[in-house]
Amino acid sequence: MAYKVGILGATGAVGQEIIRLLHDRNFPFSELHLLASANSAGKIHNYAGNSWIIQEATEECFSDIDICIFSAGAAQSLQFAEAASKSSCIVIDNSSAFRMNPSVPLIIPEVNPDAINDHKGIIANPNCSTAIALMGLYPLHQAFGLKRFIASTYQAVSGSGAAGLKELETQIKAWSDGRSLKSEVYPHQIAFNLIPHVDSFEEDGYTREEMKMLHESKKIMGIDDLLVSCTCVRVPVFRAHCISISAEFERPVSLQSAHSSIQSFQGVELVDDPDNLKYPMPLNYSEKVPCAIGRIRKDRVFNNGLAIWVTGDQLWKGAALNAIQIAELLHTKELIN
Amino acid sequence: MAYKVGILGATGAVGQEIIRLLHDRNFPFSELHLLASANSAGKIHNYAGNSWIIQEATEECFSDIDICIFSAGAAQSLQFAEAASKSSCIVIDNSSAFRMNPSVPLIIPEVNPDAINDHKGIIANPNCSTAIALMGLYPLHQAFGLKRFIASTYQAVSGSGAAGLKELETQIKAWSDGRSLKSEVYPHQIAFNLIPHVDSFEEDGYTREEMKMLHESKKIMGIDDLLVSCTCVRVPVFRAHCISISAEFERPVSLQSAHSSIQSFQGVELVDDPDNLKYPMPLNYSEKVPCAIGRIRKDRVFNNGLAIWVTGDQLWKGAALNAIQIAELLHTKELIN
Repeated sequence: MAYKVGILGATGAVGQEIIRLLHDRNFPFSELHLLASANSAGKIHNYAGNSWIIQEATEECFSDIDICIFSAGAAQSLQFAEAASKSSCIVIDNSSAFRMNPSVPLIIPEVNPDAINDHKGIIANPNCSTAIALMGLYPLHQAFGLKRFIASTYQAVSGSGAAGLKELETQIKAWSDGRSLKSEVYPHQIAFNLIPHVDSFEEDGYTREEMKMLHESKKIMGIDDLLVSCTCVRVPVFRAHCISISAEFERPVSLQSAHSSIQSFQGVELVDDPDNLKYPMPLNYSEKVPCAIGRIRKDRVFNNGLAIWVTGDQLWKGAALNAIQIAELLHTKELIN
Repeated sequence: MAYKVGILGATGAVGQEIIRLLHDRNFPFSELHLLASANSAGKIHNYAGNSWIIQEATEECFSDIDICIFSAGAAQSLQFAEAASKSSCIVIDNSSAFRMNPSVPLIIPEVNPDAINDHKGIIANPNCSTAIALMGLYPLHQAFGLKRFIASTYQAVSGSGAAGLKELETQIKAWSDGRSLKSEVYPHQIAFNLIPHVDSFEEDGYTREEMKMLHESKKIMGIDDLLVSCTCVRVPVFRAHCISISAEFERPVSLQSAHSSIQSFQGVELVDDPDNLKYPMPLNYSEKVPCAIGRIRKDRVFNNGLAIWVTGDQLWKGAALNAIQIAELLHTKELIN
């Protein structure tokens, strides 16, 4: 069995990683359709000795595709999802467009694989910070029962796509050369700075990014009364996010049980050996499949609380990898027509 | 009235800022003694048209000094504090050596100025992250009664002194030139990275830096049953720290009261206008006297809770400025012999 796979937004930072990971992970595809805006259509993309002509995304193009990963932003997802559905093309959507739609499963394959069983043609991929945070929190939830958590993020510029990566690089090189720094992607300089502003602000002062941590965590882990408070911050790091989390659980916690629950969970590594200077860092988990959990301590504010520090590649577990893992799950469960 | 002022550790990053701020703030000094290790002794230091010969710190040198700011690390502070006391030289100590000593006042002048009244010759300057965090938390404590808080820090490399500043600069320039990066000050690369490790680790997995946030906060604010959980992280920023805080209070909170309590507190600015892209950032509060508080939201995890984001210059409010404000307080209160 091999599938005709499409990528909407193939020229973006996430799209490029999807092409790479489809090859690296030997996903069974017979055809690969690279879809993008009219601007990119007709260009040639080469990878691993193959080349593809980038096609303009149209409502008709999905009739040739079994499964399409959408990674071109919410507006494009909303524009093309219905056409894909009508063509019986399964959509794995990286955008926020459908995540909170009750009829769309929101999936982290290590966490809630069975929620995919009832999919109706669209499966949503979580927000990057949420996906990485839950890779640390879910095994602890299984062990102790999660009640509430407070998260502060340290988010890499890859979260703003190729343009974010370019902006940090350009600013750093300008600084090194003694030239003035320009900000185009971010509202303020990101080099040597911290910007406590990711996605747009809501009326209560939280950003949409901060609220995703609440809403998506509840949906993915199935904890209806979960309480979450989150502060999202952009940092001058290229492509791995970190999240500092203090969490309260229903049952008494122990460090030993926390360690073993993480060690027995798929897709994560326990990196918690401070005496040997080992703790998760973005540089060590860029272009890595697993997320890393470390700095595990008894939290001093919560009863039954743990403080943890989680790292994961934003472009991979936060986007492309999780999307491909969803495709792999559809394949394994024989859910693709 | 003008004082004979000494600076122990005058050649360090904080020492340099002390020299600068003593001049900028017109502190009444008649003499300035720059004390350092034998390595630096005999060198000339110039500032604002004046020049000084750097003296080697010895037990005898304090007899000529009314007030000396110690900024050469805990070992030096322990070595020279007694000699200074015997010479009736008041010590303002930037190190951690005396902070938790019950007979040594630990002072943030805006927070607990009257604790200085009973000093016995040594006054301690708080840890940088704690000083900056409390500039945001204390006005809220006054308004609502602080019970507990969770803090995640984003700490600039200036916290490691001149060597930390140099390491980030050197790594960034090497990266820009395509050369390999060396780490000497930090155990790992700091450029484009995050290191969740500041100061040494204790047995329970917390670092000493993280525990300072608890112990020093309790002492400075006088809240004996305060609970604090803290995660300290080094970030590739030059000289202003940020702290993300979720705090729970005894009494109901309102954003309006939070704003007004901060606006009426000395030494801080309310920077909380996200619609106009205004929030505290390290670049905007480097080499600035006030700390900045913003991103103020009702916390979603705590009852009577607030989430805030605080920024302040590590070398200034986190060290040199606060020390000089302590000297100013001694002067105003006529506590210098």
